[in-house]
Amino acid sequence: MTTYRIAVIGGTGPQGKGLGYRFARGGHTVVLGSRAAEKAEATAAEVTERLAGVEGAGTVTGATNADACGEADLVLLAVPYDGHDELVASLPLAGKVVISCVNPLAFDKRGAHGLVIDGGEGSAAESAQRLQPEATVVGAFHHVSAVTLWGDADFLDGEDILVVGDKAEAKEQVMELAASVTGRPGIDSGKLRLARQLEPLTAVLISINRKYKTHSGIRIHGV
Amino acid sequence: MTTYRIAVIGGTGPQGKGLGYRFARGGHTVVLGSRAAEKAEATAAEVTERLAGVEGAGTVTGATNADACGEADLVLLAVPYDGHDELVASLPLAGKVVISCVNPLAFDKRGAHGLVIDGGEGSAAESAQRLQPEATVVGAFHHVSAVTLWGDADFLDGEDILVVGDKAEAKEQVMELAASVTGRPGIDSGKLRLARQLEPLTAVLISINRKYKTHSGIRIHGV
Repeated sequence: MTTYRIAVIGGTGPQGKGLGYRFARGGHTVVLGSRAAEKAEATAAEVTERLAGVEGAGTVTGATNADACGEADLVLLAVPYDGHDELVASLPLAGKVVISCVNPLAFDKRGAHGLVIDGGEGSAAESAQRLQPEATVVGAFHHVSAVTLWGDADFLDGEDILVVGDKAEAKEQVMELAASVTGRPGIDSGKLRLARQLEPLTAVLISINRKYKTHSGIRIHGV
Repeated sequence: MTTYRIAVIGGTGPQGKGLGYRFARGGHTVVLGSRAAEKAEATAAEVTERLAGVEGAGTVTGATNADACGEADLVLLAVPYDGHDELVASLPLAGKVVISCVNPLAFDKRGAHGLVIDGGEGSAAESAQRLQPEATVVGAFHHVSAVTLWGDADFLDGEDILVVGDKAEAKEQVMELAASVTGRPGIDSGKLRLARQLEPLTAVLISINRKYKTHSGIRIHGV
């Protein structure tokens, strides 16, 4: 298995922290990024403590979002959609594989639903690609719950990671990385534009979670 | 179990025929609808033959789409999105529970993707509800493959039927009906507007099918 140096932008949020924990558990070196380095370092210490005794775990450190990108092979965007474009545009991402798990959602009294991006012909992942044309953006990890990621299971082996992207090599790397979360490679789910479908699907999972008091995830049958 | 009289609009297409077969297998009375009654009758004869020896199966007959609606408790719309609005507006659906499994998709050389309805703030199911305000529209059965439906498995027990709707009673009926396909009730997946998320998800499954040479389906983990 290739081990990567992975920056997690928004690494102090529940999704970023949970995925960072899983990546490090899988042997990857993780730098959690945040607006303030001290906050990132505090979360990194918490994740490191959680990894105590896990054989083969990678190290977890903290830095500012921009510094975290520095030597990373892969950069995970795990930030809220609000402010996403400005932040992504500001980061040094040229030449890197950038993974977006960003879910642009809207909430009202009827629950969660998908936020419409570019009149329905866009997604957070495609926005990131447009803002960083020299990066290679891959969409993945949209549907794993922060609670489950931070939980005690060795792997989220009842769930699948759906991976979309336009460059085969980058997509393969992310599919391989997904094994640190589910115990097996992610599923090649097509071109990057299908992030339009994956991102707002999270609104459906949130509805299911509310109804059934659970932390649901997606499994693809037949692969 | 309640048994229903179910009209399948577009009942000679692969999805309509497959779902009609499963509903009849589950004991429901099915009327397959088509533009021409004779075509519907021929498909009904084919499904009836397929049901030979299935204990407790309901009858399957054919009629024009409009006639099929006549005495139905539930009406399934299993038609292509092209021409959908005109057809739905023409049917006698007032007072009925209408199930939409319609997937508005677009195809180009990069594969399938979701067709944008009403600038991203609509779906086939919502269009049907708007065109038939005295009907109660429920979205379901978007993700089951026609091939699997027509296949030999007793139930598609590795898959889930996601059900969205705004009226609890109608949604419950459809969740119960889903048991004739998967062997267990469908999953309450929220309000009707989430059909915006369910319908184009089929484009992702089509991409997966192409890549992995399979007939994939959706399973919700954690419910």
